[in-house]
Amino acid sequence: MAQRKTKNLAGVVHGIEDFRVEEIPMPTPLDHEVLIEMDCVGICGSDVHYISHGGFGDYKLKNKLVLGHESSGVVVEVGRKVANLKVGDRVAIEPAIGCRTCRHCKAGRYNLCPDGVYCATTGQGNLCNYYTHAADCCFKLPSNVTMEEGALLEPLAVAVHCCRRGGVGIGNTVLVLGAGPIGLVTMLVAKAMGAAKVCVIDLMDSKLELAKALGADATLAVSGHEAQEHIVRRIHLLLGTAPDISIECTGAEACVQIGIAATVPGGVLTLVGIGAIQQRIPITTALVREIDIRPAFRYANCYPAALAMVANGTIDARKLVTHHYDLGDSVQAFKTSRYGLDGAIKVMIHCQPRNKNNPERKI
Amino acid sequence: MAQRKTKNLAGVVHGIEDFRVEEIPMPTPLDHEVLIEMDCVGICGSDVHYISHGGFGDYKLKNKLVLGHESSGVVVEVGRKVANLKVGDRVAIEPAIGCRTCRHCKAGRYNLCPDGVYCATTGQGNLCNYYTHAADCCFKLPSNVTMEEGALLEPLAVAVHCCRRGGVGIGNTVLVLGAGPIGLVTMLVAKAMGAAKVCVIDLMDSKLELAKALGADATLAVSGHEAQEHIVRRIHLLLGTAPDISIECTGAEACVQIGIAATVPGGVLTLVGIGAIQQRIPITTALVREIDIRPAFRYANCYPAALAMVANGTIDARKLVTHHYDLGDSVQAFKTSRYGLDGAIKVMIHCQPRNKNNPERKI
Amino acid sequence: MAQRKTKNLAGVVHGIEDFRVEEIPMPTPLDHEVLIEMDCVGICGSDVHYISHGGFGDYKLKNKLVLGHESSGVVVEVGRKVANLKVGDRVAIEPAIGCRTCRHCKAGRYNLCPDGVYCATTGQGNLCNYYTHAADCCFKLPSNVTMEEGALLEPLAVAVHCCRRGGVGIGNTVLVLGAGPIGLVTMLVAKAMGAAKVCVIDLMDSKLELAKALGADATLAVSGHEAQEHIVRRIHLLLGTAPDISIECTGAEACVQIGIAATVPGGVLTLVGIGAIQQRIPITTALVREIDIRPAFRYANCYPAALAMVANGTIDARKLVTHHYDLGDSVQAFKTSRYGLDGAIKVMIHCQPRNKNNPERKI
Amino acid sequence: MAQRKTKNLAGVVHGIEDFRVEEIPMPTPLDHEVLIEMDCVGICGSDVHYISHGGFGDYKLKNKLVLGHESSGVVVEVGRKVANLKVGDRVAIEPAIGCRTCRHCKAGRYNLCPDGVYCATTGQGNLCNYYTHAADCCFKLPSNVTMEEGALLEPLAVAVHCCRRGGVGIGNTVLVLGAGPIGLVTMLVAKAMGAAKVCVIDLMDSKLELAKALGADATLAVSGHEAQEHIVRRIHLLLGTAPDISIECTGAEACVQIGIAATVPGGVLTLVGIGAIQQRIPITTALVREIDIRPAFRYANCYPAALAMVANGTIDARKLVTHHYDLGDSVQAFKTSRYGLDGAIKVMIHCQPRNKNNPERKI
Repeated sequence: MAQRKTKNLAGVVHGIEDFRVEEIPMPTPLDHEVLIEMDCVGICGSDVHYISHGGFGDYKLKNKLVLGHESSGVVVEVGRKVANLKVGDRVAIEPAIGCRTCRHCKAGRYNLCPDGVYCATTGQGNLCNYYTHAADCCFKLPSNVTMEEGALLEPLAVAVHCCRRGGVGIGNTVLVLGAGPIGLVTMLVAKAMGAAKVCVIDLMDSKLELAKALGADATLAVSGHEAQEHIVRRIHLLLGTAPDISIECTGAEACVQIGIAATVPGGVLTLVGIGAIQQRIPITTALVREIDIRPAFRYANCYPAALAMVANGTIDARKLVTHHYDLGDSVQAFKTSRYGLDGAIKVMIHCQPRNKNNPERKI
Repeated sequence: MAQRKTKNLAGVVHGIEDFRVEEIPMPTPLDHEVLIEMDCVGICGSDVHYISHGGFGDYKLKNKLVLGHESSGVVVEVGRKVANLKVGDRVAIEPAIGCRTCRHCKAGRYNLCPDGVYCATTGQGNLCNYYTHAADCCFKLPSNVTMEEGALLEPLAVAVHCCRRGGVGIGNTVLVLGAGPIGLVTMLVAKAMGAAKVCVIDLMDSKLELAKALGADATLAVSGHEAQEHIVRRIHLLLGTAPDISIECTGAEACVQIGIAATVPGGVLTLVGIGAIQQRIPITTALVREIDIRPAFRYANCYPAALAMVANGTIDARKLVTHHYDLGDSVQAFKTSRYGLDGAIKVMIHCQPRNKNNPERKI
Repeated sequence: MAQRKTKNLAGVVHGIEDFRVEEIPMPTPLDHEVLIEMDCVGICGSDVHYISHGGFGDYKLKNKLVLGHESSGVVVEVGRKVANLKVGDRVAIEPAIGCRTCRHCKAGRYNLCPDGVYCATTGQGNLCNYYTHAADCCFKLPSNVTMEEGALLEPLAVAVHCCRRGGVGIGNTVLVLGAGPIGLVTMLVAKAMGAAKVCVIDLMDSKLELAKALGADATLAVSGHEAQEHIVRRIHLLLGTAPDISIECTGAEACVQIGIAATVPGGVLTLVGIGAIQQRIPITTALVREIDIRPAFRYANCYPAALAMVANGTIDARKLVTHHYDLGDSVQAFKTSRYGLDGAIKVMIHCQPRNKNNPERKI
Repeated sequence: MAQRKTKNLAGVVHGIEDFRVEEIPMPTPLDHEVLIEMDCVGICGSDVHYISHGGFGDYKLKNKLVLGHESSGVVVEVGRKVANLKVGDRVAIEPAIGCRTCRHCKAGRYNLCPDGVYCATTGQGNLCNYYTHAADCCFKLPSNVTMEEGALLEPLAVAVHCCRRGGVGIGNTVLVLGAGPIGLVTMLVAKAMGAAKVCVIDLMDSKLELAKALGADATLAVSGHEAQEHIVRRIHLLLGTAPDISIECTGAEACVQIGIAATVPGGVLTLVGIGAIQQRIPITTALVREIDIRPAFRYANCYPAALAMVANGTIDARKLVTHHYDLGDSVQAFKTSRYGLDGAIKVMIHCQPRNKNNPERKI
């Protein structure tokens, strides 16, 4: 192993519009934890929200908070009881750690744990040089998976969870509402799960072009002025039928409405995008058609599947990363992500020089 | 068999506020059908809607329509290919007949069949003396089940379907919103499926008293002025916890909202009551708690279970029937049901003298 | 609280045919544990197997082992981090504690955890005066549930698990093979989950009489000489149809064979009874009828449901307990259980005077 | 449309070792049927069994029987009530037609219908020039799907059904036992459903080479003399873990045993291959690991998914077809298939000149 850095720099939000790179204490791993030298950290919309709004959903900034939860790094120290990892292992970090004792954790739905720790919401994030984490929530990357792909497992895990919640299966037609990062990885995962046709809709042509490049079977640019029935008709034409599953990745009320109007009777509308608390929903349409509305919140037990599909080459999400910054330039990185500068989709922050930890597949 | 009547009288709606008892043609069974001498027909809210509003949901009155779909009768003639029934069999009539060839029918969800025939909506009802029906949709009643109970299998099938859709299981806590006929039978079925505690809420004390008499573990009278958070808190106190499953039986927006606010994370809100097309829903609350919203529309493959539980004595729904009328007095029967006269819950119309066809258990 | 005992006596097996009551060290609870003054401990067949065979399935006696895993007691001390319990709480003890970090634990199936601790197999049992246990695996008993019922939650949890695995639901017909303690509680739980008719079969009339007394809808005494087709025909006659779900509670090859032969196409055979490693199974019959064979091993997340149904009075398993012994008489208690002396079904060992800890419902 | 043939030639089995091509009557479609000019018919092991053994499982040859049930053709006449097809449509024929009224049909599991008609078992097959079939069981082929691929939808539907029954999903590791036609298409479908790694085992290297060519991630040649534990260890090494799902496609007892021994605790063994009625199964191993044994019999509602995945190019099964014969040479075609002559995997019989009905993709 290379020599360890003497300082632990981190991207810290102190309040609305107050985000800086500064030094934080060097952590020490507990018995069941590993100490990780961080490598890649992707910027998520929720990170940006802390800077722009001081919080995210129910999570309000109380004290300063290290951001970052889409991450990978290299193990540099292991706790006394750690058996599954060793120093030098390249790992992706699942940011969710349940309490392990509540009814949700024990039933396998630790994403619903009220006492869980989640990086950069209920716990500190890992946009920093050194970070400790529960060893069982770190997933060793095989040599053909890059550190960036390791960081991308987080949005991919979101996609795996929402596609599982939606019941995407072989031969299904799928509608993805929104071509942001989550919409795009959802499309990739739906295809990997056997969806016969996936149609992605968005307001912006540029995003849909990326959807197409990544493998969407059909894309549809819509405008806010277009009548919903008209949009639904166009979706049905593109898919050749009503979608079996619609996956809402924007949080916009109009998209939830279109999702219900478009989905086949007996189908499912999965909600991933978080928007306004209350929304006007055509609930009677859902009722007489028995369309299930199934929300998907984060993920549980999804990292292994996401990693396996990246490792075997089925899912290649690397095109999502449009911008790269060093940890020291995190302030600019967040600006690029926040304002979608220069066509930004996914912005990646590097705590290490790129490729330093990529033995096989270089970027 | 007793001699057949020479006339076929029926309760027919001709238009809004135009409902009469009049003669209709005597039907003849096709090869796979049976001819039934009708006995009991319960009045459902959807029947009433034809008279008060000229339709129900998407179903608009185009021509005159015989009402009635909660029914039982006695087989008086069988088609050439009928093997499961014989003359003299007392049967409950499942009013839903799918096309049997569409994707929904073939997948076992014939309640979603776009071409199906449903009594008193897409097909003629059976509030009449003689009626033909597909033999496989008629369920033979054992001798200890009364004709009235046979008619009550229809709302019970609704309850079985919505409790199955909600995934009610052993040890669950259940919230039932609304103590009308569907709310009450849903409570009965939830208990029969192993719910540990069922709480029923309603605006009217009188209905809640019946809920209590039928076996509800807890009841809660609410007022339209009470803050939802307050109602939710009271529900949690009564159940000792948040409900695993909430079942909305009113169609009211406020109830859908309470259902989401009250349900445990990872739980299910089942929708049965049909209300306004668009409703304001706290969708983000449902999302971060992963509360599924699962609508239940009519039923599929639920009559056998409903019948079995009535036959073995687990479910006794007879107290639901508060009023009895002869077929000739159907106009008055509908008034009683429509305006809830005299504490009416379920109004039963008799096309035969009561007890005529009840060999064992008299009423 | 009463004064604590100064000695910690326990029922310890040292080797085949070598079981004694002797003193063991007094334990101290860890941060997340509670110290329990044991009250009731039921004897299970697996306990007996340690004495008669030196082990059970893959579990071989290596060192001396405290027996006992069907238990209840009173909390006398709580670890520093325990929030869900306090001194004086009467609790049932779930004997299974998963590692909380393996794929099975994280997916909610901790009964499959290879590194889990299970009382009296991979860990020490609790047939003793003082015992420490993870607080989240102790379930507080309401005042109307006796300590004996608390101990009976363990076999009831087995029954809940196997009925859930079998998918028992409203209106189902169920065949239970074997009227030992597990067969009997399985019948009780199947009824509580909405089974319309449960038929129990066994070789011994006396056991079937208890099944009848506990609520079985039908019982069938079979002999080892009877042809299987004949037994199947009699089962079908008693149930009026082929069972939707069959639950094998004996481990006998003949019962597995009957289970497959009897079950309806598309149904389920659940295996709970453990018998010979290899068995001759009519696998092609299962195949062309698509009968699932679903094993149920112990339980996961079943204690809450079992407790709820005992607490609300739906399940009354007290008649299963045929014999009572003091801890000091454990050797005789095991003899009674092992040889089925005096019609023994479930033998209960009391580490406290009976009723000492039963505030409401006395025995 | 080209002119119709005047004769209807068919491959007819009259008894053991008595199979001929001979003229049969020209059929006329009923109201809901179509008349099909047959194009491709694949030979299945069950067809061969009629010739070699006079039957198959419970199906014994009573009278002469037209063979063939893996088929495609062109609609040349439609019944009065047919709406989904028109003359000239190229269709794949799903050979299973349920009674549409029994509990299995109504619940969507028409493959379990006791009164269903299945080509070349309970009904006549379609290895002939003209054949009538229920229109809703014919699936229109898009122009880029060849007639041979249409015929291959039948084994693909078997594979879809067994992978669905096994619950194959994203990231799973899958073991396929047997590299015959069903094993091979099962591997293709498992991959399409998101299996991360599929390992195929067989006795014959030549079959495993085809498995590899079709996309198997790993293959393993085993011998009958190898110890099962050794085989299991090699499977685990190849997959890097125990398989989540094992799919038995041979019917051999040893394969069922290996399937149970190899599968991960909590996993599934799906049975497709039909072998000896009774088999020695390590049932206790399955029990303590909670490995479900889920048989898959034929298919229900699987043709649409199979067709969609062939049409979108995800599944290319054309390499399975190793031999082609004209209808007139059916006797030789069956010999080739029966004795695996010349490396035969799937033998296709053409009732029309090849490519005559393939507008887009020629063979």
